[in-house]
Amino acid sequence: MDFAHSARSQSLIERLQRFMHEEIAPAEAVYASELSGSADWRQWRQPAVMEALKAKARAAGLWNLFLPEPGHGAGLSNVDYAPLAELMGHSFIAPEVFNCNAPDSGNMEVLARYGSPAQQARWLAPLLAGESRSAFCMTEPGVASSDATNMQATATIEGDEVVLNGRKWWSTGIGHPHCRFVIFMGVSNPDAPPHQRHAMVLCPLDAPGVTVERMLHVFHDLDEPAGHGEVSFSDVRLPAENIILGPGRGFEIAQGRLGPGRIHHCMRAIGAAERALALLCTRATTRTAFGQPLIKLGGNADIVADLRMAIEQARLLTLKAAWLIDTQGVKAAMSEISQIKVIAPRVAQRAADAAMQIHGGAGLSDDFPLASLYAYARVLRLADGPDEVHRGLIAKLELRAQLKAMEAGA
Amino acid sequence: MDFAHSARSQSLIERLQRFMHEEIAPAEAVYASELSGSADWRQWRQPAVMEALKAKARAAGLWNLFLPEPGHGAGLSNVDYAPLAELMGHSFIAPEVFNCNAPDSGNMEVLARYGSPAQQARWLAPLLAGESRSAFCMTEPGVASSDATNMQATATIEGDEVVLNGRKWWSTGIGHPHCRFVIFMGVSNPDAPPHQRHAMVLCPLDAPGVTVERMLHVFHDLDEPAGHGEVSFSDVRLPAENIILGPGRGFEIAQGRLGPGRIHHCMRAIGAAERALALLCTRATTRTAFGQPLIKLGGNADIVADLRMAIEQARLLTLKAAWLIDTQGVKAAMSEISQIKVIAPRVAQRAADAAMQIHGGAGLSDDFPLASLYAYARVLRLADGPDEVHRGLIAKLELRAQLKAMEAGA
Amino acid sequence: MDFAHSARSQSLIERLQRFMHEEIAPAEAVYASELSGSADWRQWRQPAVMEALKAKARAAGLWNLFLPEPGHGAGLSNVDYAPLAELMGHSFIAPEVFNCNAPDSGNMEVLARYGSPAQQARWLAPLLAGESRSAFCMTEPGVASSDATNMQATATIEGDEVVLNGRKWWSTGIGHPHCRFVIFMGVSNPDAPPHQRHAMVLCPLDAPGVTVERMLHVFHDLDEPAGHGEVSFSDVRLPAENIILGPGRGFEIAQGRLGPGRIHHCMRAIGAAERALALLCTRATTRTAFGQPLIKLGGNADIVADLRMAIEQARLLTLKAAWLIDTQGVKAAMSEISQIKVIAPRVAQRAADAAMQIHGGAGLSDDFPLASLYAYARVLRLADGPDEVHRGLIAKLELRAQLKAMEAGA
Amino acid sequence: MDFAHSARSQSLIERLQRFMHEEIAPAEAVYASELSGSADWRQWRQPAVMEALKAKARAAGLWNLFLPEPGHGAGLSNVDYAPLAELMGHSFIAPEVFNCNAPDSGNMEVLARYGSPAQQARWLAPLLAGESRSAFCMTEPGVASSDATNMQATATIEGDEVVLNGRKWWSTGIGHPHCRFVIFMGVSNPDAPPHQRHAMVLCPLDAPGVTVERMLHVFHDLDEPAGHGEVSFSDVRLPAENIILGPGRGFEIAQGRLGPGRIHHCMRAIGAAERALALLCTRATTRTAFGQPLIKLGGNADIVADLRMAIEQARLLTLKAAWLIDTQGVKAAMSEISQIKVIAPRVAQRAADAAMQIHGGAGLSDDFPLASLYAYARVLRLADGPDEVHRGLIAKLELRAQLKAMEAGA
Repeated sequence: MDFAHSARSQSLIERLQRFMHEEIAPAEAVYASELSGSADWRQWRQPAVMEALKAKARAAGLWNLFLPEPGHGAGLSNVDYAPLAELMGHSFIAPEVFNCNAPDSGNMEVLARYGSPAQQARWLAPLLAGESRSAFCMTEPGVASSDATNMQATATIEGDEVVLNGRKWWSTGIGHPHCRFVIFMGVSNPDAPPHQRHAMVLCPLDAPGVTVERMLHVFHDLDEPAGHGEVSFSDVRLPAENIILGPGRGFEIAQGRLGPGRIHHCMRAIGAAERALALLCTRATTRTAFGQPLIKLGGNADIVADLRMAIEQARLLTLKAAWLIDTQGVKAAMSEISQIKVIAPRVAQRAADAAMQIHGGAGLSDDFPLASLYAYARVLRLADGPDEVHRGLIAKLELRAQLKAMEAGA
Repeated sequence: MDFAHSARSQSLIERLQRFMHEEIAPAEAVYASELSGSADWRQWRQPAVMEALKAKARAAGLWNLFLPEPGHGAGLSNVDYAPLAELMGHSFIAPEVFNCNAPDSGNMEVLARYGSPAQQARWLAPLLAGESRSAFCMTEPGVASSDATNMQATATIEGDEVVLNGRKWWSTGIGHPHCRFVIFMGVSNPDAPPHQRHAMVLCPLDAPGVTVERMLHVFHDLDEPAGHGEVSFSDVRLPAENIILGPGRGFEIAQGRLGPGRIHHCMRAIGAAERALALLCTRATTRTAFGQPLIKLGGNADIVADLRMAIEQARLLTLKAAWLIDTQGVKAAMSEISQIKVIAPRVAQRAADAAMQIHGGAGLSDDFPLASLYAYARVLRLADGPDEVHRGLIAKLELRAQLKAMEAGA
Repeated sequence: MDFAHSARSQSLIERLQRFMHEEIAPAEAVYASELSGSADWRQWRQPAVMEALKAKARAAGLWNLFLPEPGHGAGLSNVDYAPLAELMGHSFIAPEVFNCNAPDSGNMEVLARYGSPAQQARWLAPLLAGESRSAFCMTEPGVASSDATNMQATATIEGDEVVLNGRKWWSTGIGHPHCRFVIFMGVSNPDAPPHQRHAMVLCPLDAPGVTVERMLHVFHDLDEPAGHGEVSFSDVRLPAENIILGPGRGFEIAQGRLGPGRIHHCMRAIGAAERALALLCTRATTRTAFGQPLIKLGGNADIVADLRMAIEQARLLTLKAAWLIDTQGVKAAMSEISQIKVIAPRVAQRAADAAMQIHGGAGLSDDFPLASLYAYARVLRLADGPDEVHRGLIAKLELRAQLKAMEAGA
Repeated sequence: MDFAHSARSQSLIERLQRFMHEEIAPAEAVYASELSGSADWRQWRQPAVMEALKAKARAAGLWNLFLPEPGHGAGLSNVDYAPLAELMGHSFIAPEVFNCNAPDSGNMEVLARYGSPAQQARWLAPLLAGESRSAFCMTEPGVASSDATNMQATATIEGDEVVLNGRKWWSTGIGHPHCRFVIFMGVSNPDAPPHQRHAMVLCPLDAPGVTVERMLHVFHDLDEPAGHGEVSFSDVRLPAENIILGPGRGFEIAQGRLGPGRIHHCMRAIGAAERALALLCTRATTRTAFGQPLIKLGGNADIVADLRMAIEQARLLTLKAAWLIDTQGVKAAMSEISQIKVIAPRVAQRAADAAMQIHGGAGLSDDFPLASLYAYARVLRLADGPDEVHRGLIAKLELRAQLKAMEAGA
């Protein structure tokens, strides 16, 4: 057993930390000031400072770190990338700076692993270069998407074409001025077994029949410039070569995509929790009431201790899940992946809530990033499967393991 | 012991419920559409539908129900008004419709109880008539306002004038187009004992030296048209007759103001919790996943049961606190008032969070009122004293009571 | 609404409190010293001090207070008796002193309400007089008794006889030297609808075929002199007149028995919680560490505040449930009865656990009653239906109520 | 990063698991039957089966595994021993079988590391051989022992003798028929700085002036044959050579002793939690109510998932703490050691409580080990420092680390 990061990971941690401190932290306010602030997403713009930061990050070799495929990205294992994802979670703008932001990172993984050479050339290359953005269209407004088999959108094969119909929402990033395409998931083989019914299709955002209906608020925030969109697809006709891997293989791709993606999300959530805790500690030691710094009052010190314990545990479990994926594959890590998906967002939500409380009213305002950290964590308890679905899976796997142990007489 | 509402209260409950169902529920969307939606609070407007509803409510005798002074308001006891406040908590627009919304209700109470006849004629009458709105300026950005003695703003007596200086924030309602004045709290007698140092001063919003600096976001929401403002006061010179009760009596007034105000807030929070629970139940019984309504899955039914228990208990405790104020005065109810202040907002926050989870992504969006219910509850854990201060007071009073019981040999 | 106790209840509260302080508190150690301390329940004895206390309580008019039937007992309503039950919960020996201890109180209620005159003369009279004790045999070791329809024991009607077979456990009080009979529940009408299948039968403890197999430990405690027994019934042949109300009516009786019984249990649990909190406060203010009384350290004061809030809320809900039974009947109070059954024991368990923690090692030992208070609370989360069953019922009733409200357009 | 056990550890895990399954599991009932069951600790006896098991374990090379000093024990690192300690936590008799039971293991560590050759020959050798047992006398009944500087017992140096006076309790193991000596801690240098005031002294149990006053109950259990004793020391006169390391060095020794000891305790607690979870799963899948196995009802599956997550996280954190001790020393691991001390016992307590609930009444009885597992966990929240002290330390270290990070501009 060894809890130390590898030398390569350790070196990247230090470089990334320095970059975040020297380049990103001072740029956050600039970034905010360069946004349009418009309620009309069509007016949104990409802050110039972001493009400048991206160029610097790329020059510094801090680019596409998330991608394990050495041909395309940094070739880091999940356990080596995890602490970098955590660091990026400290700042909302950091993931894009390093070209590691969802859902593009997931889409790049899919294309790197499952895309044909032609698909990679057309769709992957500009993403890898940070020249375009993309979205992922899976969740639907009309059904409980926690059960993926509820999906109603269709990707009907007609000759050498595929025709998309349906309505999707929570398509993150679709409002970004650079967004060029989406990966659409829909039923292609309605008569196949439930997990062989769907296709993933590459769909340009400007294809006829694609309409971005509106951007959704998250706790009253539109999340410029990425946004979370509701999109309709009406008889969107595309060449069949836009299907990834082929009809009926959507779930297979989704499975492969989700394991590492959850590591990334959870590690960023842990970074968010650390940022909240740091803000909490600063405020609690610098504000006074009743003649004492807040940290000395009531159970405030216990809150710090409880958060430290919760974060530390969540991090270790996430790292173990990453290690399991690296060494034994996604399937062997299924329980742990679901475990971190339940735990990490809750820890981040709790840390943000506790930090708000110590900050008083200021904590709820835009003077601090706590409301945004909170919203990020809260969304994550629903995105990529709600807690309830993951808990159910953990219990199922646990009972199976216990039964096996009992039969083995252990 | 009798847990039934009085006949008068019961009759008002029924009339109010009907009004909310028939008049307010259908008006909510109209109201939202008539807001400016502007990020610049100077563009905000009062929706016409609100004035129409106010007229109807007044005509229906559902007006100023909160005010126990029979000359000015309905003359209901706290325990009789409490269930009405709860009902109003179901809709964000309801309190204003019935002229029972904070902070105007608190300001009206102060003026009705402590205002001179001249003050009542000038400032109270238009509030009672619903013709103007007001704000309350107590919390300050520069210090931890959980400790009221931290207050730095000053209300200096100079001859027959009082001069206001300082910076306040979280002045709710100050962005409202109808807002005409604030009650300002500041140090008037710096050398007096800590709780006899402050004055409450009536200050017109257009007095020279008053500047509304900005509106604060709460979870990214500006809360049009009321808003939560940051305001600066620079040598605002007012006649000394604008001081309520006289210099040094600010805390005395604040104490009297806060008891019933907390009952109102807590009952509204309970109403908010009930609304969240109702939404949760509707969604959980009408959406299906894995072949079953959500309510049948995992621990979802337990969540319903747990919320029912939590809400029921919070309501009973709030009603008891109201009854204690009515029968034995605010001082005898101090522990119970602090108890509900800790409990009711937490229950509402928890109910909104649970309802969000059942709604999936939709629950975070503006398609449902859950994000707003959540924010209301979250704010309330800080407003009127953060949980921590109330817990400290409850513990202090408990230890005192235990000591007394021990000495009495009980 | 009125949260004050009735004059009669208030007067009894004061008399009972005085009796407990003057007579019972000093007798607790004597009582403990007069127990046999034997691991063999056949050696157990009734402490002489108990009989002396019973005589005094009876002389003081503090006797059979639980029984609402005026002919037999004090004729108090549930809401009037509730605070007396709470007070009795402060001491483990108090309920028996006042002839209000379970399961005798429940058995007396059953006999007073459903017993024939002959049954009342033979079985009820000595219980009312405190001359004998009884037990209740419902739970079975072989099945999950949370589902009462799982019951396997039989009460077969053969002519004018009834024949009992089966194995029961958790028959509290069956080890008491004064225990003379049990109420046995078993299947009498196997082909009837599920809730009309069972009979309750009065069975002398010395009837041939009745064997007390052993006493069960509860957290390693045998609970002398009452005990919790496992009992087998092998062809126990009794006259059919021993059946209460008649075959098939066992569930009907159980329903009537359980409502008030749960009020009693829950109020005693609240008394137990109050005792734990009092001990906690005493210890926390009289022991010092790091130069301060424990109460000043860390989050200890918050623990006091949190317990006060939890107890207060549990009490109010229990009183409301009692009031509902009194004014609208057990059926209308079903949700509230289940709610308190979930809440009150948990509050008591939590209070005992917190008090233990403040006491350090001493809190786990027999030097303090905390381990016993804890065990009482823990048992109560299972007895009379585990939390899970009650939660399920609360949710079911809630969903029904929400549906009704929705349909009513509220 | 590597989450796999070392080859040596893995091999020992498998051997130990087999031994526990084949030898210990079947011996548990025999062991219980060979105890005296007496309330008088002087009648206690060591079950013959224990000595037989010890001989087998020693022969199998599963002996003194806890001791990192290769000359004396297995020479395993903490991180290698940790999973073995966890396995031992599954059975109450296992630690003694492998000669790894507290407090002997801690005493052996102290003697191996700090004892003089003469002390090792006389006191350590028989412990290592499993021929005698020992106790540790630190906690005192008269003061809050959470603050070690409260200690009142004295170890006064008089010439070449040391004289012990004071009263100790919670001296675990002192009731064991094989117990031969205790390590006594008392004030030797009252005028030195607080952490250089105490001495640890080896004291034979039969030294004149040593009186074992009584055995303490833990949740009504006396814990035969080890027991938890209260002991008085009255002018116990011993040669000064019985002092370990010398006067004033007691705290220094205690610090060294406690780090690994807490790893052991916490890993055993995790083993206890796993046993409780396994029992829970078995019961929940084999008992039925309302026509379904319990696991299908209400939130029961969520309980399994939540426990799995809690246990997994506690284990990883404990392993990391062990790894930190191994690689960077106890001091660098201080926060993590305190963290696991708070977390692991709570997880075990929660697992035992949840398992009890699923077992119904049976879970509280001696038919299942749950009450004992529960008590073990509950004790552990107080032993070796209560949660509160550890939380305080974690917060202190966290604030120091945050401050350092802030100053470093991170």
